[in-house]
Amino acid sequence: MKDFPEDSVGLVTPTSIHFDTPLTLASGRVLPEYDLMIETYGELNADASNAVLICHALSGHHHAAGYHSPEERKPGWWDSAIGPGKVIDTRRFFVVALNNLGGCHGSTGPNTLNPETGKPYGPDFPIVTVPDWVESQARLADHLGIHQWAAVVGGSLGGMQALQWSIDYPERLRHCVIIAAAPKLSTQNIAFNEVARQAISKDPQFYQGHYYEQQVVPKTGLMLARMVGHITYLSEDGMREKFGRELRSGKLSFDFNPQFEIESYLQYQGERFSEAFDANTYLLMTKALDYFDPAADYNNELAEALRQVKCDYFIASFTTDWRFSPERSREIVDALIEAGKKVTYTEIQAAHGHDAFLIPIPRYMEVFGAYMNRIANELETADAR
Amino acid sequence: MKDFPEDSVGLVTPTSIHFDTPLTLASGRVLPEYDLMIETYGELNADASNAVLICHALSGHHHAAGYHSPEERKPGWWDSAIGPGKVIDTRRFFVVALNNLGGCHGSTGPNTLNPETGKPYGPDFPIVTVPDWVESQARLADHLGIHQWAAVVGGSLGGMQALQWSIDYPERLRHCVIIAAAPKLSTQNIAFNEVARQAISKDPQFYQGHYYEQQVVPKTGLMLARMVGHITYLSEDGMREKFGRELRSGKLSFDFNPQFEIESYLQYQGERFSEAFDANTYLLMTKALDYFDPAADYNNELAEALRQVKCDYFIASFTTDWRFSPERSREIVDALIEAGKKVTYTEIQAAHGHDAFLIPIPRYMEVFGAYMNRIANELETADAR
Repeated sequence: MKDFPEDSVGLVTPTSIHFDTPLTLASGRVLPEYDLMIETYGELNADASNAVLICHALSGHHHAAGYHSPEERKPGWWDSAIGPGKVIDTRRFFVVALNNLGGCHGSTGPNTLNPETGKPYGPDFPIVTVPDWVESQARLADHLGIHQWAAVVGGSLGGMQALQWSIDYPERLRHCVIIAAAPKLSTQNIAFNEVARQAISKDPQFYQGHYYEQQVVPKTGLMLARMVGHITYLSEDGMREKFGRELRSGKLSFDFNPQFEIESYLQYQGERFSEAFDANTYLLMTKALDYFDPAADYNNELAEALRQVKCDYFIASFTTDWRFSPERSREIVDALIEAGKKVTYTEIQAAHGHDAFLIPIPRYMEVFGAYMNRIANELETADAR
Repeated sequence: MKDFPEDSVGLVTPTSIHFDTPLTLASGRVLPEYDLMIETYGELNADASNAVLICHALSGHHHAAGYHSPEERKPGWWDSAIGPGKVIDTRRFFVVALNNLGGCHGSTGPNTLNPETGKPYGPDFPIVTVPDWVESQARLADHLGIHQWAAVVGGSLGGMQALQWSIDYPERLRHCVIIAAAPKLSTQNIAFNEVARQAISKDPQFYQGHYYEQQVVPKTGLMLARMVGHITYLSEDGMREKFGRELRSGKLSFDFNPQFEIESYLQYQGERFSEAFDANTYLLMTKALDYFDPAADYNNELAEALRQVKCDYFIASFTTDWRFSPERSREIVDALIEAGKKVTYTEIQAAHGHDAFLIPIPRYMEVFGAYMNRIANELETADAR
């Protein structure tokens, strides 16, 4: 058996939790019952005060850290930040990660069976919003006996969930960690999402979302969606540094085969993704992004939406992120300041674009770690009292 | 009959010109014969010194100004800049616009008949490069009796042709006008092009480029290609100002129909384009963009590539253009300065992104007009001598 690194949470086993209290969604539709697939790392302390919720981004899931088997090649998606001695220190925190409702990694979603029909939900799965996710996560907290999170943490779409938590359940979190996010999508963000949706839904193998029954998947559509997405995750500088205009064979081939390294890289990423991710879930996730706009109910005044929040905030952005640029994070920071709240903000110098939030960039890990350390210290001070 | 505006060139008739001297392309392949579709505006003067060549961008063609019929709804694509009294003043200049080789508007290209087979060239049409176009345009100049252009003018990919002209035929142009261009594509530019190519070539109606025989077109692929392209032509600010997060019906519909204005706008643009443009030509144009790199033969030193040029340059960029940002234009300017050449550079404040080069923004028209006026005055001074 393979030895896991010392700072890894090691072998982890996901758990599925069934909820049978109907959930009314923002759309008005009701999910009579549903499952959430989760993973936890570390131990919940006696007063259940050390729990940290990890919210995932567009293509994420519950497997945030550690390994499902000794053979697993790569650990969970945020293993660089979660583990014993890491930024989110599992010796001090009880960490909960889940696959969101509508996901395709074990939680109830388009690719799971609709109990009413015995067939996959497919396109009949309702549109879910960030507030819907927060509601389902609050019920998960109830189930786990967690009244108040030490922190709710997320990057990108995950950061939007953290922000929404602080608005919807001001009493249920002490800290809100929002990384590389935005208070709502820009027009350009929506435009790129719409290209992805058109690519998927116009793929002849999409069958209006009923591709499961046809034993096919809209691979081309998903591949194109991921290629476009991937361009927006990388910075222009990072792309140039990594791929430049390097030719695969050293010279131009004067045909339509990929000849620049960036072309084959994107194709590879797109194809790999199209084999692993559910198309209906991709559509749902992009809709949750488009719809996210907590200020909308407050006359488009984000500071008003934040008037009732109680937690402290840690907000981080990355200089070359052009999907959710630092400017977008500063909108949240400025609204928090206007609303008289406590906020720590850092803008990290990084060439990696939006992807930076997943990468253990030293300064990022230092400041994020210092903040998480402060949260853990508060816990221990409270324990000592 | 409709009256055309006074500053319009009015009714124009395209002409097809046949060339039967074989053209050896950069790829090594040879086109034994070909046609170029052109339009001209104004009169060539006695010493043929007042000719201006207009080079078109990715989806452009020979119809740059005026109307093909009284019924035509919209004039040529650069009518805002070409006409009597306009920036490119047809009372003073003889203006030549053409559809490039490989195009789909009448010049020899994938959708025209291959004389050797009697069928459309389709995917067998050779890859054409910017230097290939310049060569074919030089032959066009010979045909028209133009030894030296007063100016070669282009925006975007058209600007790249103008730049290449100045390198390949230093004696054959007095001025080079390069608007919203770049000395080569960035990795990100290539990446977006590759998304477009994948969208087209993986469309089941592409038939490996032989869709003409199938009486279909890869509409979805072309639509997606155009949607992605369109996002890169508009600025983020411009998009926000024009579409914001406006909802089509005033409220969220919680389904996958387009609900934000930007979604239906992009779909409409994409669909309209897919009905009008040839997919094989689109692929060729993106390849010409990717391959353009005049410094490549000079140890990647653009200043070296420009050492032998003789013309004066006018270079313009637009502040919010993120496809070919001002920084990319400044690379050309800096190389020209290093090479000791004469260059006028202007950076125009404009919210329209890359599209700005097609829009009659007052300051843009003023500085561009002042430069063109200087060229015309030189001509008239020479005449008076």
